[in-house]
Amino acid sequence: MALREVEEEVERVVEEAKELHDSAASLINRTSGEEQSLRQRALSLDSNIRRLRSLLHSNNFDSKLVDKLEEDLQRATCLIYDGDASAFLPTKAEGGFLRMFIGPINVRASRKDVQLKVKEEYNAYRDRTALLFLLFPSTILILRSWIWDGCLPAFPVQLYQAWLLFLYTGLALRENILRLNGSDIRPWWVYHHYCAMLMALVSLTWEIKGQPNCAQKQRGVQLFLQWAMMQGVSMLLQNRYQRQRLYTRIALGKAKRMDVVWGETAGVDGQLWLLCPMLFILQCHCKEHESFEFDILRAFCISDLGFEAYVGLLLLRTALDGVVSEWQVIFCGVLLVVMAVGNFINTVQTLMAKSRFKAKMKRSKSKQEL
Amino acid sequence: MALREVEEEVERVVEEAKELHDSAASLINRTSGEEQSLRQRALSLDSNIRRLRSLLHSNNFDSKLVDKLEEDLQRATCLIYDGDASAFLPTKAEGGFLRMFIGPINVRASRKDVQLKVKEEYNAYRDRTALLFLLFPSTILILRSWIWDGCLPAFPVQLYQAWLLFLYTGLALRENILRLNGSDIRPWWVYHHYCAMLMALVSLTWEIKGQPNCAQKQRGVQLFLQWAMMQGVSMLLQNRYQRQRLYTRIALGKAKRMDVVWGETAGVDGQLWLLCPMLFILQCHCKEHESFEFDILRAFCISDLGFEAYVGLLLLRTALDGVVSEWQVIFCGVLLVVMAVGNFINTVQTLMAKSRFKAKMKRSKSKQEL
Repeated sequence: MALREVEEEVERVVEEAKELHDSAASLINRTSGEEQSLRQRALSLDSNIRRLRSLLHSNNFDSKLVDKLEEDLQRATCLIYDGDASAFLPTKAEGGFLRMFIGPINVRASRKDVQLKVKEEYNAYRDRTALLFLLFPSTILILRSWIWDGCLPAFPVQLYQAWLLFLYTGLALRENILRLNGSDIRPWWVYHHYCAMLMALVSLTWEIKGQPNCAQKQRGVQLFLQWAMMQGVSMLLQNRYQRQRLYTRIALGKAKRMDVVWGETAGVDGQLWLLCPMLFILQCHCKEHESFEFDILRAFCISDLGFEAYVGLLLLRTALDGVVSEWQVIFCGVLLVVMAVGNFINTVQTLMAKSRFKAKMKRSKSKQEL
Repeated sequence: MALREVEEEVERVVEEAKELHDSAASLINRTSGEEQSLRQRALSLDSNIRRLRSLLHSNNFDSKLVDKLEEDLQRATCLIYDGDASAFLPTKAEGGFLRMFIGPINVRASRKDVQLKVKEEYNAYRDRTALLFLLFPSTILILRSWIWDGCLPAFPVQLYQAWLLFLYTGLALRENILRLNGSDIRPWWVYHHYCAMLMALVSLTWEIKGQPNCAQKQRGVQLFLQWAMMQGVSMLLQNRYQRQRLYTRIALGKAKRMDVVWGETAGVDGQLWLLCPMLFILQCHCKEHESFEFDILRAFCISDLGFEAYVGLLLLRTALDGVVSEWQVIFCGVLLVVMAVGNFINTVQTLMAKSRFKAKMKRSKSKQEL
């Protein structure tokens, strides 16, 4: 090719680069202008819906029409929050946690299908890790009595603790991102994962003592591993159940597709002796609506998260008895009890909200029948 | 307000919700269509520029025109990569590291000013942490000889190690995000942070032994803290220098604004005795162009990163001598030596590329004078 031709081509390329630059700039400007106006419309519409809803509630209109209007408003809300318009609703402020790790990056997807993919991926991640959650500690515990003569070596346990730290960090980051993408996961379940991160970190600094007498010295570690195994089982069941339940709720129009049904089932827990009577009442109240699978799951959750408080208290006792005197033991014990109490409170709140919702549904149903 | 009026308002709101939904969907569809076409144009233009550049290089045209054409192509490249069009260039694949922590989220900003803000924030983050990097270990070391009688208590050291783990995770995540946003930070500096993360994690499991004889048993920890302090000093200097240098390079048109000037200065290191003669040659070769500040910085980098290898080898020796026999000591030692060697190789590569660039500049300058 002659230099002459090359020169012409270079000129053309430079020209094209300028054109491309201009069209890119104009597209970005145009789009951001239109987005701005959509954002304002979405905002004012959202506040209008809120206003009308509170009007309907406060004025005590007693009429069938009120129920119909409420349904209309609900449909409008779903249309905005669940459709493409949701990209233009004001975001929740980015939490400090996410900002600490990745800085002020926009992690909100503007397209609904991308948001749903984020949700799907979160579920897939939970599925993948739940299996490991079960297998990792149970392998260590089996090897302990089979090969290691009742004495855990430090390395595999620390590897497991490091993995837990990584896992909980990943879960907490993903849940923060889900929240920004419109999921209404209860904040407690994210805090719960912060606590779990902290516990994994502290447990890493926890010295795993060897012979002699290691069965006694390793009591705390062993309890910790057993608790983790239980969590693995309940996580597997929860994942399966939640997905089914979410699909049902979406089909019934009760849930948006971005919701995470954590709070509903994950947290039936607390100290067994305290929770049992209360759960009995609540469960009898709801039983007619629940499936057999839900009962199994609930039983697991109770034992799992009751175990959380139980392990916490045992750890505190070993520390206070002077068997193991490290601060890590006390700290993990307190943290486990705090997590159990938090779970308990949140579960009760969820169940109360649920029974309120059901009572309301019944009322409106009987009204319609009248 | 009468129920009648409320009903009308609700109807209007439902209507508005539908309209908003439709306009949002149409904007998103329209935009993604236009973006797709811009993406194709950017891609073909980019490959055209590459083709022409290799044509100019291979055909041995000996003329002033070639230099002019090369400059034109360079300008076109800058226009695409540095302007709004850059949002439509194909992304680098998201690294496994980022995906592991936050899943397949799009973290690429489409607007250039947002990308630059990401960069600015990264620099600000480095500034903030550099101070802590210096103060944290030096406080611990001062308290050690002042209050703690030469014997480090475990808690503050572990707190520091946990902070290091968090810091390096944050840096590695941010650098991955920067890369996706068009920065050309050398991959090694990201790997370097992965290694540092691993080391912080391992050091957390490293038992800090107390009396008696703690001065001897804590030798490794003490060296580690001294090394960290040195890193703090050089990080502060680097940050200041890099920012100045980046501004200069942008002004001279040698750098894009998203570049991170890590590789250029951070890595002058290696085992001192090996590196010194080589650096001497390279430095004499480049000296005329460099400022006084750069020399100070380089001296610091040499001592800092030479210290990295030195601490690594010392750790290995204490482990092999049997003074401290934990696997963590050997592991950290090997990791430090690997990091030092990697830094050394990367620095030499950067310096070589730089001197090649300078030689070329000189050649083209003398050609133009002819």
